[in-house]
This record gives sequence, structure tokens and C-alpha cells, in this order.
Amino acid sequence: MRAIVLDKGRVTASSDYPEPEIRKGEVLVKVLSAGVCETDLQLVRGYMGFQGVLGHEFVGVAQTGPLAGLRVVGEINCSCHECDTCRAGRPSHCPHRSVLGILNHDGAFADFIAVPQRNLHAVPDSLPTDVAVFTEPVAAAFQIPAQLAIGRQDRVVVLGDGRLGNLCAQVLARLSSRVLVVGKHPSKLELLQRLGIPTVLLSDLPAERSADVVVDCTGSPTGLPTALRIVRPRGTIVLKTTVAGEQTMAWAPIVIDEVTIVGSRCGPFERALAALDAGEVSVLPLVSGRFELSKGVEALEHASSKSVMKVLLDIV
Amino acid sequence: MRAIVLDKGRVTASSDYPEPEIRKGEVLVKVLSAGVCETDLQLVRGYMGFQGVLGHEFVGVAQTGPLAGLRVVGEINCSCHECDTCRAGRPSHCPHRSVLGILNHDGAFADFIAVPQRNLHAVPDSLPTDVAVFTEPVAAAFQIPAQLAIGRQDRVVVLGDGRLGNLCAQVLARLSSRVLVVGKHPSKLELLQRLGIPTVLLSDLPAERSADVVVDCTGSPTGLPTALRIVRPRGTIVLKTTVAGEQTMAWAPIVIDEVTIVGSRCGPFERALAALDAGEVSVLPLVSGRFELSKGVEALEHASSKSVMKVLLDIV
Repeated sequence: MRAIVLDKGRVTASSDYPEPEIRKGEVLVKVLSAGVCETDLQLVRGYMGFQGVLGHEFVGVAQTGPLAGLRVVGEINCSCHECDTCRAGRPSHCPHRSVLGILNHDGAFADFIAVPQRNLHAVPDSLPTDVAVFTEPVAAAFQIPAQLAIGRQDRVVVLGDGRLGNLCAQVLARLSSRVLVVGKHPSKLELLQRLGIPTVLLSDLPAERSADVVVDCTGSPTGLPTALRIVRPRGTIVLKTTVAGEQTMAWAPIVIDEVTIVGSRCGPFERALAALDAGEVSVLPLVSGRFELSKGVEALEHASSKSVMKVLLDIV
Repeated sequence: MRAIVLDKGRVTASSDYPEPEIRKGEVLVKVLSAGVCETDLQLVRGYMGFQGVLGHEFVGVAQTGPLAGLRVVGEINCSCHECDTCRAGRPSHCPHRSVLGILNHDGAFADFIAVPQRNLHAVPDSLPTDVAVFTEPVAAAFQIPAQLAIGRQDRVVVLGDGRLGNLCAQVLARLSSRVLVVGKHPSKLELLQRLGIPTVLLSDLPAERSADVVVDCTGSPTGLPTALRIVRPRGTIVLKTTVAGEQTMAWAPIVIDEVTIVGSRCGPFERALAALDAGEVSVLPLVSGRFELSKGVEALEHASSKSVMKVLLDIV
């Protein structure tokens, strides 16, 4: 089958990659559409040391199992569901897990992907494939209110005007009336302004320590230090950014200002599908590039350009 | 008056330091006893760039005001009580604050100290001065349960067997039955064992990610990375350690494991005084050195030795 493969830091388009082996509990899914995520770009730069087929945001058609013939999206953590962590209700943190397209499991930039049956969610008929392909990142945005109570009057600052920053801002703007997005790209900030969400250029951000909640979606090691400069004492920083390697920062302000930092990763798919179906989150304006699967290397390159938002792979 | 003064990185014992100017709302306090804290040692190494009289743990006798003639302890943050932060109920984070012996305010290693009247708490007659001098660090330990619900079954690991680690462990061991203290010094760990609190040497700490809560009292930049290695996914790290300069660490695990990091600083004096008066926290076994005020430089040197716990200055 066709697949976009990361091997020893190099990405190539393969036309004869072996079809996925179906392990116990897994279902073969024919991929229809896949999205390029910041994590994919980080993986190419060496994050997690991943080798294999990239891609973890996708819509496909289940080939077997109870959802056979239906369009599906899939949660990315493949957990054992037997260990203490899984039984404590934290399967997405299973120490034995593989992660689609990220850790020890081939991903969705391919004709087919193997996905645990219990990870699959049927896509409502009313939801176009191009919208449903955003389920995984929208779920990641909904993880923030799942971890943290956001009040109507909370001053929430989202750092980053990219793919994830945009989605987080949309989710949070339905909870707080005081969301502000900080970015570097006028064209990306405009997407948010059109939705009525206030924005500011990073260079114009007042040096004020007044935010109750700061969400770091910068994808950059500068995000957390910036967040610490604008969060109020006893405020909360939600860290969405994962970057490879080590980062340097003064930690003392975390203690002095009694700041809380909350790491935030994958979120609830059901909530994301419902929000997309209800039109609570607008995703189509984010699509700024479409590529055929065989052009996956070019798609990744395009996605890494600063002006680009979501890049989709059409897999037909 | 006599005072132990930090000036341009050098500590000296002065015999003719000017008596404190009493600003509006302040009371002159004759110091009876003062404790040396890890923060004092950090200040000497350049933390905060402080210059002036060191010392923020003390018992004294109020010379004026409603508590005149009584023994008092004093909260260390001198806040304006007028700004937005103060009015929002966070006076210890007042951006205009000075901090006794730490920031723009002379401290307690001296014959006299000026303290805002509203910062003072009368010491119960039943509480010996040598015990009451621990109020400030015991309050800092009580800040942890003020920020975080600790359950009876929570696995709590305290990193650090020093002054603050010992006090935090004692406070937390009354809330959880599963507190473990990790240290490097058998003699310091023994102080905890005598109180029935389990301990382990850092070198024997299992590489297990099972702690629900980890409290970093190491006073070392190695504390947070160690905490991240033993906290469970979605667990909480309470950061008590403040160190000068910048620190380097991989941040990605905070996100991947959805860890929460809570900075924790000063705590409730009333609760600490009540706990000391009720004998809930045992502090006298921690005293491992006493010096006269004029020997304050030697006291700081002694306190920085690895085997030493609390060093007191007797100011008579």
C-alpha cells in the first residue's frame, strides 16, 4: 500500500509499504482523509524517536467489526486496559500503550491503518469527512475544560495562532467571555477575529501579569516563559506544547508566584464529535492545503511553513 | 544595633547598623530568636539580588501597638493591601510588596526589625520561643494542604530530608497514611523514622511512576526532574524549591503525562501556631546549632553544611 514513512529522520513516500498487521482487538480501517499536526513535524525533527508511518488525525471506513462500512475516527492511544493505570481510569496513560503514528504503531498517512476497535467512534452522517478529520485536535482542545474549571469572567490567554491555538481558543471562547489569542501572524489572527475572538500580536502584548489562565499552544520553547510573564500570581498555565530535547528557564517564579502548570494532551472524542456536529467549532476555514497521499512529503513541508494552517491528505 | 548584613554577595556581622526606620503601619520588634532558612543561603549565593539584613524566621517582642510587650511572630510579605492583587485576596503576591529579609526590607538577624502590625501574630504563652521560631517554615508546609486536597490513601513522596522536607513530611503524614520521604542523609532520615514516617535513600528509590503527589523540598535543581520520574501520570508535583538562575530540563513529559506542577510558597501562620501549640509538629529535634547574633556569619556557614538541620540565632 501507499504510505508516508519516517525512517531515521527521513520522510519518504512509499508505494509498496506492507499492509498493517491486525493485532488482537484491532480493526482494519481504510483511510479517507488525514490531517497534518504540529506533532508530525516534531516527530520528523526527532521527537520521540519515532519510526514508521506518520499520521494520527484521520477519518476512514472500518473494514470489519461492529462499525464495518461506516466512517470512523479513532482515538490514538492503544492501551492494554489491564494494568493498574488503565484500571485506575487513565488508559490514555497506559505505560504499555502504543500511539497511532507517534509511538510503536504505524499511523494514518497510508491507505490502511490498524486501530483498536474500542478506539473507534462512528462519524455522524451529517458530518462531512473534511470536518470530522479535525476530531482529534478538537478533542485535545476539549481536554482543557475537562481538566480545569473555566469561569465566564476568567481572563484566558491562548498563546499561539496556529492549528491547535485556534481550536483551543474557539472551545474556550464558549466558556469565558474574556479570551484573548496572542500570535505572530496577522492572517492567522484574522481567522479568529472573524469568529469574534479578540487577538493581539505578540509584539503588542502588554507586559501585564493579569491572566487567570494561559494556554501555551505555541509549539515553541518560548511559550512557557512567555506564559509565566503574563499569568497572574496563583494563576494557571495549561501546557499543550511538546518540544523535543531539553529547555532552559528560571523555575523560581513558579514557586514565588505560586503558579500552577497543567500538562494537557489528548481529549474526549465524543465531546469533539458533538461540538463539530453542532457547529460549535469552525474548522473548514483552517484548511489551507490539500495533497494526495503520494504527495505526503510535500504536504509535511507545506505544513511546516509559517503561514499555513491545516494541511489535509486526501487518500483515494 | 547588631545585624548580619548581606552586601554585594558578602555577609558581615555589623555592630553599628542603624536601627530600622518605622514606616506607616509598622511596629518595632525586639528580636529574641531567629532561624536560618535555605532561602537565606540562596540569597547569599545571589538569589533575588537581595542586600540588607538577612533573616525572616523569628520570634520577638512587639515594642508598640496592640501587641506591645507580647511575644510575636510575623508574616514576611509586607503588602500594600490596596492594589487589585491584594483586594483579590492574594496579598502575599502584592506586586508592590517587600519581603522581610528577602526583598527590599531588612530582616530579623538583628536586634530589632520593623514589621507591619497586621503581619504580627501573638505567640501563645504555652509555646516556647525555640518552638515558635519555626512558625514561618511550618506555615509554608501547611500551604500544601491549603492548595491541594490530600487524601488518606494518596501516595505522597517528599523529596528532601532537610529542614523544609522534614516539616512538610510531618504535616502531610497527618493527612495521608502513605507518606515517604526521600533523602540523602541517614541521620536526617532517622529524625523522621523516629516519628514513624517511612524514608528511603535517594539511591534506593525505585524507578516507579506511582506517586500521586510529589513535594520537592530538595532546594536543588535536581528535585523537579526527579519528581517527574516518580510522579504518576496525571499526578501532582508541589514545587517548594526556589533556586537562583536558570534550570534545564525536558518539558515534554509534563504534557505527555499530563502532570500538574503547583508552585507553593508562604502559608497560614494561625494554622502553624495552632499545630505547634498542639504538638502536631515536632521541631525541637531539628535544632542542630545555636549561635549568638554576633556569630551570625558562622551560623550561616554552619547551616550550609550538609549534615546540619535548623540553626538558631539567640539574640539577647
